[in-house]
Amino acid sequence: MIKLNFDKKDGLIPAIVQDYKTGDVLMLAYMNADAWNATLSTGNATYYSRSRQKLWVKGETSGYLQRVKEIRIDCDDDTVLLKIEQIGEAACHTGHRSCFHKKVENGSVTVVGKALFDPREVYKT
Amino acid sequence: MIKLNFDKKDGLIPAIVQDYKTGDVLMLAYMNADAWNATLSTGNATYYSRSRQKLWVKGETSGYLQRVKEIRIDCDDDTVLLKIEQIGEAACHTGHRSCFHKKVENGSVTVVGKALFDPREVYKT
Repeated sequence: MIKLNFDKKDGLIPAIVQDYKTGDVLMLAYMNADAWNATLSTGNATYYSRSRQKLWVKGETSGYLQRVKEIRIDCDDDTVLLKIEQIGEAACHTGHRSCFHKKVENGSVTVVGKALFDPREVYKT
Repeated sequence: MIKLNFDKKDGLIPAIVQDYKTGDVLMLAYMNADAWNATLSTGNATYYSRSRQKLWVKGETSGYLQRVKEIRIDCDDDTVLLKIEQIGEAACHTGHRSCFHKKVENGSVTVVGKALFDPREVYKT
């Protein structure tokens, strides 16, 4: 089993999620040891939801799973980089392909691109 | 001034650092509000060092500054993505181009690529 350093921040480490084909950074989420082990054993990106305080299989509600293609860890074993195949259109709960769709320029923020799905339909909120 | 949400984790938010040309993810660091404002005002990536507990201009010791080319923030304003030009050869203190040079595969870790500089020479340790 690959050991990571979960000691620095409440047992959680950040996981950067990158499209394995385009290299676009799609989102950042957090993992505890259970999420890390579940990701390794299932091949589906699994995180720890800080707001819901429980394990979170990405796409369990939306169906937009993330299939893990490659895993990297950083020099001091406290950050994960997942290169994934995003099932469905978007990684962001807003319907955008990437969570990083807000561009900062000259002191203001502009949204780049359009939402690819309607969150109200996907999440039935 | 662009406001980020620094409330979730001890006043720190993660900043993903990506090569603006190749799309390679080079490292992850943390920012407090001062680091964020310094990054915006100087154009040099500036972080908060958790180990040294102070503001950290990336490259201040090694000379390997990171010139900011584009800034994105995520959907809930608690993560930054910096697209940067890495001055010098490497972003990682080990001498590797990327901190994410450890690949996880079949239950073991292999180092991808070679160190581009000798850390003992650059950091005089």
